[in-house]
Amino acid sequence: MDTSFTVTALKAIVQPQQIRGDESLTVTRIAALGDAEPGDISFLGNPKYRAQVTESKASVLLLPLDHEGEPAERQCFLLVENPSAALAQICARIEQSLWPRPEAGVHPSAVVSESAKIAASATVGPLCVVEADAIIGERTHLQAQVFVGRGAVIGQDCWLAAGSHLATTCELGDRVRLHGGVVVGSDGFGYEVVEGKHAKVPQIGIVVIESDVEIGANATLDRARFSRTVIGEGTKIDNQVQVAHNVVVGRHCILCAQVGIAGSTTLEDYVVMGGQSGAAGHIRVAQGTQVAGRGGLTANISEPGKVYSGMPAMPYRMERRLVVLQRRLPDLFKKVDGLFSELEILKKTSAD
Amino acid sequence: MDTSFTVTALKAIVQPQQIRGDESLTVTRIAALGDAEPGDISFLGNPKYRAQVTESKASVLLLPLDHEGEPAERQCFLLVENPSAALAQICARIEQSLWPRPEAGVHPSAVVSESAKIAASATVGPLCVVEADAIIGERTHLQAQVFVGRGAVIGQDCWLAAGSHLATTCELGDRVRLHGGVVVGSDGFGYEVVEGKHAKVPQIGIVVIESDVEIGANATLDRARFSRTVIGEGTKIDNQVQVAHNVVVGRHCILCAQVGIAGSTTLEDYVVMGGQSGAAGHIRVAQGTQVAGRGGLTANISEPGKVYSGMPAMPYRMERRLVVLQRRLPDLFKKVDGLFSELEILKKTSAD
Amino acid sequence: MDTSFTVTALKAIVQPQQIRGDESLTVTRIAALGDAEPGDISFLGNPKYRAQVTESKASVLLLPLDHEGEPAERQCFLLVENPSAALAQICARIEQSLWPRPEAGVHPSAVVSESAKIAASATVGPLCVVEADAIIGERTHLQAQVFVGRGAVIGQDCWLAAGSHLATTCELGDRVRLHGGVVVGSDGFGYEVVEGKHAKVPQIGIVVIESDVEIGANATLDRARFSRTVIGEGTKIDNQVQVAHNVVVGRHCILCAQVGIAGSTTLEDYVVMGGQSGAAGHIRVAQGTQVAGRGGLTANISEPGKVYSGMPAMPYRMERRLVVLQRRLPDLFKKVDGLFSELEILKKTSAD
Repeated sequence: MDTSFTVTALKAIVQPQQIRGDESLTVTRIAALGDAEPGDISFLGNPKYRAQVTESKASVLLLPLDHEGEPAERQCFLLVENPSAALAQICARIEQSLWPRPEAGVHPSAVVSESAKIAASATVGPLCVVEADAIIGERTHLQAQVFVGRGAVIGQDCWLAAGSHLATTCELGDRVRLHGGVVVGSDGFGYEVVEGKHAKVPQIGIVVIESDVEIGANATLDRARFSRTVIGEGTKIDNQVQVAHNVVVGRHCILCAQVGIAGSTTLEDYVVMGGQSGAAGHIRVAQGTQVAGRGGLTANISEPGKVYSGMPAMPYRMERRLVVLQRRLPDLFKKVDGLFSELEILKKTSAD
Repeated sequence: MDTSFTVTALKAIVQPQQIRGDESLTVTRIAALGDAEPGDISFLGNPKYRAQVTESKASVLLLPLDHEGEPAERQCFLLVENPSAALAQICARIEQSLWPRPEAGVHPSAVVSESAKIAASATVGPLCVVEADAIIGERTHLQAQVFVGRGAVIGQDCWLAAGSHLATTCELGDRVRLHGGVVVGSDGFGYEVVEGKHAKVPQIGIVVIESDVEIGANATLDRARFSRTVIGEGTKIDNQVQVAHNVVVGRHCILCAQVGIAGSTTLEDYVVMGGQSGAAGHIRVAQGTQVAGRGGLTANISEPGKVYSGMPAMPYRMERRLVVLQRRLPDLFKKVDGLFSELEILKKTSAD
Repeated sequence: MDTSFTVTALKAIVQPQQIRGDESLTVTRIAALGDAEPGDISFLGNPKYRAQVTESKASVLLLPLDHEGEPAERQCFLLVENPSAALAQICARIEQSLWPRPEAGVHPSAVVSESAKIAASATVGPLCVVEADAIIGERTHLQAQVFVGRGAVIGQDCWLAAGSHLATTCELGDRVRLHGGVVVGSDGFGYEVVEGKHAKVPQIGIVVIESDVEIGANATLDRARFSRTVIGEGTKIDNQVQVAHNVVVGRHCILCAQVGIAGSTTLEDYVVMGGQSGAAGHIRVAQGTQVAGRGGLTANISEPGKVYSGMPAMPYRMERRLVVLQRRLPDLFKKVDGLFSELEILKKTSAD
C-alpha cells in the first residue's frame, strides 16, 4: 500500500452512516486490529474480536452500526453497515493505484505477427510475443514477456501477467486473469508403448477457459488429445494447480494450490478441492462436492454436495472417525492381547 | 483442430481396406463416438463400445475390418486394420498444421552470443537468449523467449517451448522436448549449518537429458552438486515434476504430474511413478517398479517389476487390504468392547 | 565442471598440511570415491567410507590428516583438516567460473523505465523488464528475461535467474537468490461468494523477502491481502514450493520441494518442512519444528523443536508406531475373530 487516505477521502469511498472522533487524520496502511499502529486503518470484520477494538492503536477504524464505544484521542471511528465490504471498497481503490490502467497499444519491443488481430484498446506490454492469427480483445492487457501462440483467442478485459503462456489455438473468454508463469495449452501426457518405447500420442485438441476465470502462478493446463480441455465460467484456480488433458472443470469451482486433476476427469459445477488434493483420471465428480486438503478422489462421486477427505478419499466424518481410531490402535492391540491372556486362563480354569 | 478433411483426403492418409457409404463428406473435428456430431470423425478404439457405432452421429467413422453394420445416410465408414492407429495418423497430420516447421534462422529480436554455435537448419525464435559457447543442433527449434545458458548443449531435432529454461553447461540429447516454463539446471538444494545459518553448498554439476525425453510444463530439474543429474533415454516426464540434484532416472521411465524425486535417488529403467507420488532421497528403485498415485517410496526397492502404493509405500495388494480393514476399524473396536464385556461376565460366572 | 586443476593449483586452494604421491597430475572432474576415474578428484567426507579410498581410481584424493595409506602410482593424496570443507573451496572456485561476474550495466535489449533506480554496479541482462520506480541495489544481477514490477525494491548482491518474476511493490533484501520461474507477488487466493459467484477480494499487500534467502525454481509466493507475506532472513526454499498470502515464514527455515503453506500461517524460526509436506491455513508452528516428507500440519504446534509426520501430522514416534501397527491389522482382525469363536465355545461349555 503505497498511498495515503485522509478521513475525508475515506468518507467519500465508504459513505459512513456515523463518524466519531478526529476527522483530521490520515492513514497509510491497512492492518488487523491487533497489529495496527498509529497511521493505520483497521476494521471489525467479525463480532468475536469486538474486545480488540478498545485496545487497537489504529488511527481509523471501520465498525458496525451498532458499535457502542468511543474513539481514543487521535482516533476516528467510521460506522458502516458492513465493515468488511467497506474495507474491500478501499482495497479496490488501492488496487487501481497498484495496477493502473496501462495505455493502449503495442510496446515497440513486442514481437507481434502482422496477421494477429489486436483490439485498439488492448495493451501488449514489452517483450511479448503474439504469433500469427492470434486475436486479442478490447481492453485486454498483456503485462510483459507474455507468449500468445498462433491462432490463440483472448476475449475482452483479460489480464495476462508477465511470463504467462497461452499456446497455439487455445481460447480465453472475457475477464480471464492468468498470473505469472501459467502455461495454458502444453501437450497432454499421452504415450503408447511401441516396441518397448513410449511413442507420443499426438495432442491436437485445445484448452478453453471460459469467462471470469482466474488462474494462479505457475499453474499448468494441458491441451486435449483431441477436442477440448475446459475450465468453466467463474472457476478460480490457485497457484501450481495441474489440469491434465481432456479434463472438464465445471463453473464456479475452486481448486486450491497444488491440486492435480488427472486426464479426462470431469468436475461438475461448484466443486471445491482443498490444497494438495487430487482426482484420479476418468472419473466424474458431482456438483458441489468438497474435498479436504490432501484428499484423493479415486472413483466417481455421484451424490452432490458431500464432503470427502483422506487418501483414498471417503466421506469426511468417516475419515475423521478413522483418524481418531487409528490413534487408539496401540490400546486396541494391548486390549486384544489382554483378552487373549485372560481367555487362556479362563480356558484352563474351565478345563480344570 | 483448425483444419478440414474430405473423405478423399482421409483415404489418402489411412489407406482403408474398405469404404462404405457417402464419400462426398467433409469433417472438421474429431470426437468420441458418443459426443460426435455431423461434421466430426470418430473411431472404434475398443470393441466394447461397438454398440455406440450405430448411434453415433459422426459423419466419418474409422472401424475395424470385421465391422458388420452399414452407415446411415450422409455417413461414411472407413474400415482399417487398427482404427486407433489410423486416427493417430490423422492426428499427426493435424499436428503438423498446428506446429508447422518454422523457417530456419535466428529471429532478429533474439539475443545470441557470438560464440554460440547454432546449426544452419535450427530456428531460434523471437526474444530468445542464447549465451556464450552454447551449441544448438540441426533442426532444433527454440519457440520464443527461451533461455539457453552459457555452454549449454542441445542436440538435433529438439523443441523448446516458449519460456523454457536450460541453464549453463546442461545438456540435451536429440529429439528432446521441453514444454513451457520447464527449468533445467537450477541449483540443487544443499546447505550446511554453519553457526546457526544455512551456508550454501556449491552446486557445480550439470543436468544431462538423454535423447527422446519429453518434459512437461513447469517441471524443474536441478543440477548435481558435482557430477550429473541424469534423465535416461526415452523417459517421459509430466507437468510440475520435481527432480532433485544427483538423481538418476533410467531409460523409458514415466513420471506423472507433480511427482517429486529427492536428491541422489536412482530410478532404474521402466519405472512408472503415478501422479503426486514421490521418492525419498538416496534410495534405489528397481527396474519396472510401479508406484500408484500419491504413493511415497521411503526405502530401496530391490525386486524389479512390483507395484507399490500408500505412504509409506508398501506392496499394492497389502495396501489395498489395509485400506479395507481400516474402514472396518469402527466394527473392530465395537467387537473388542463386546468381547471384553462378555469375558467379564464369563469371569464372574466362572468365579461364582 | 568445465575446468581443470593441476595439483599445484589445488594446493593453492586447499592449503594441504601434507602431500603424498605424484604432484604432476591434473584433474578435470569431481566424483565420489567409488565412481571416480583417472583424471578425477575425490574426497573422504565420512570415515565410514575409508575402505573405498584404497580402491578409488581418482587421481587426486582429499583425505583427513590421520589418513595412513599411501597413494597408488599416478595418484596424489592431499591431507587436510576437513576434506569436505576443502572440496567446498574447490567447488566455490569452479562456481565462479560457471557464473562469472557479469559486466555492470543494462543490456541494450532490456526494457527499463526511466524512473527505475539501478545501481551503477548492478547488471540488468538481456530482455529484462524493469518497470517504473523499481530500485535495484549494488552488484545485483538480473540474468535475462527477468520481470521487475513497478515500485519493486531489490537489495544488494541479489541474483535473479532467467525468467524469474518480482511483481509490483514487492521487496527483496540483500543477497537474495531467485531461481528460474520463481513468481514473487502473485495475487493471494481470496474470494467471497456473492450471488453464487466467487467475487475477488482485492490483494493489495506485498511480499517481503529478507536477506540471504534463496528460492528454488518455479516456487510461488503470493502477496498479502493487505500488509505483508514475509520470508525471514536466511530461510531456504526449494523448487515448486507454494507460500500463500499473509504467511510469515521465520528466519533460517528450510522448506523442501513441493511444500505448500496455506494462507495466514506463521512458521517460527528454524522450522524444517520435508518434501511434499504442507501446513493448513491460520496456524502457528513453533520454533524448530520439523515435519517429515508428505507430513500435513493441521493445527497449531506450540511446543518447540519437535518432529512430526503423517497426515494429519502427529508426533513422529507415534506415527511410526501406527504405521507398524497398521501393517499388523490383518493379524489383529484374525485374532479377534479367533477370540470370538473361542469365547462362543467357552460360553456354550460354561452354559452346559
